[in-house]
Amino acid sequence: MADYIEALQKLSEQFGRLQGVGRKSAMRMAFSVLELDTEEVAEFADALIEAKRRIHECPVCANLTDRDVCSVCSDLSRDRSVICVVEDVKALMSIEKVREFRGVYHVLHGAISPVNGITPDKIKFRELIERAGTGEVNEVIIATNPTPDGEVTAMYISKYLKPLGIKVTRLAYGVPVGSDLEYADEVTLGRAIEGRRDV
Amino acid sequence: MADYIEALQKLSEQFGRLQGVGRKSAMRMAFSVLELDTEEVAEFADALIEAKRRIHECPVCANLTDRDVCSVCSDLSRDRSVICVVEDVKALMSIEKVREFRGVYHVLHGAISPVNGITPDKIKFRELIERAGTGEVNEVIIATNPTPDGEVTAMYISKYLKPLGIKVTRLAYGVPVGSDLEYADEVTLGRAIEGRRDV
Repeated sequence: MADYIEALQKLSEQFGRLQGVGRKSAMRMAFSVLELDTEEVAEFADALIEAKRRIHECPVCANLTDRDVCSVCSDLSRDRSVICVVEDVKALMSIEKVREFRGVYHVLHGAISPVNGITPDKIKFRELIERAGTGEVNEVIIATNPTPDGEVTAMYISKYLKPLGIKVTRLAYGVPVGSDLEYADEVTLGRAIEGRRDV
Repeated sequence: MADYIEALQKLSEQFGRLQGVGRKSAMRMAFSVLELDTEEVAEFADALIEAKRRIHECPVCANLTDRDVCSVCSDLSRDRSVICVVEDVKALMSIEKVREFRGVYHVLHGAISPVNGITPDKIKFRELIERAGTGEVNEVIIATNPTPDGEVTAMYISKYLKPLGIKVTRLAYGVPVGSDLEYADEVTLGRAIEGRRDV
């Protein structure tokens, strides 16, 4: 039926373009739009256009921002001598939520993946090396994902930065806090044992 | 962090208005919009406005349509003497997918719910009675949801239509085809036994 309501079908297809949205969810969202009033739908459409128009990468760290420089880089209280390297803005947001880290970031917008043909020049790798090499950076914390690609990326970065005399660290691997050892996978558990600490 | 990217936050809030979309999904979708190119985002915004502007209720059956009369009501091959009553357009779509039913529909846009203060005048109940009472309708199949509200609605409709000499039927209850009896809930299983048929 919905296939015959052309405008609904079109809207549903638009939702379906978004990452992680399946056909059923897309149609449910399209229906949901019809329940909003005309003004609300106009606001929604505006928000789409505005987000796309205004949001760009921070020229310093490649975080997303709708200002000249992102909110982290423009915060004078942050420690510019420590750079945390992440694959994407979502990872940056996750780390910010913890409110533990007071340094700045560098967003790679991807990870090196030889299998998928993603070489260092396809991510913001050169920018990181240049930035870290200015002499003002003491430590680079690599927070790429704990995946094979993330590992390759971490090793690659480390190889370039260590000769510059920069301390390079990697997020700790281990069992997640509050989880049950019974459900931890073998690799994680192996890493947790490897990284065990005195108590 | 995202709280500081105002345009992203606003867009995420818009997605969050849609039914069944939580905060995390909304933010993920907002990010996903940034990956589309400007033209695609403009199309998305247009699709929102157009869907809201063009889609309205069919004056005959209250199905949604972007034409004068919905595609079911305007299909001359459908049998107008049988009306299937559904709570919403999603139910109508589900039944249409089966390609079994060749009659027409009536969308109530809700169900009578004494607990929630939804009285018959808050749904398209009067319209159904008027439509069924024209003398052209032989059977009304009640396909409201198998929930307490759906049941109340079914009984209420039946009470009004039976005196008019109209055959009133209800979708069969029973165990879903392909399912395992072990997982059927007691009420469903009870109804399945009640409604057992000779083989």
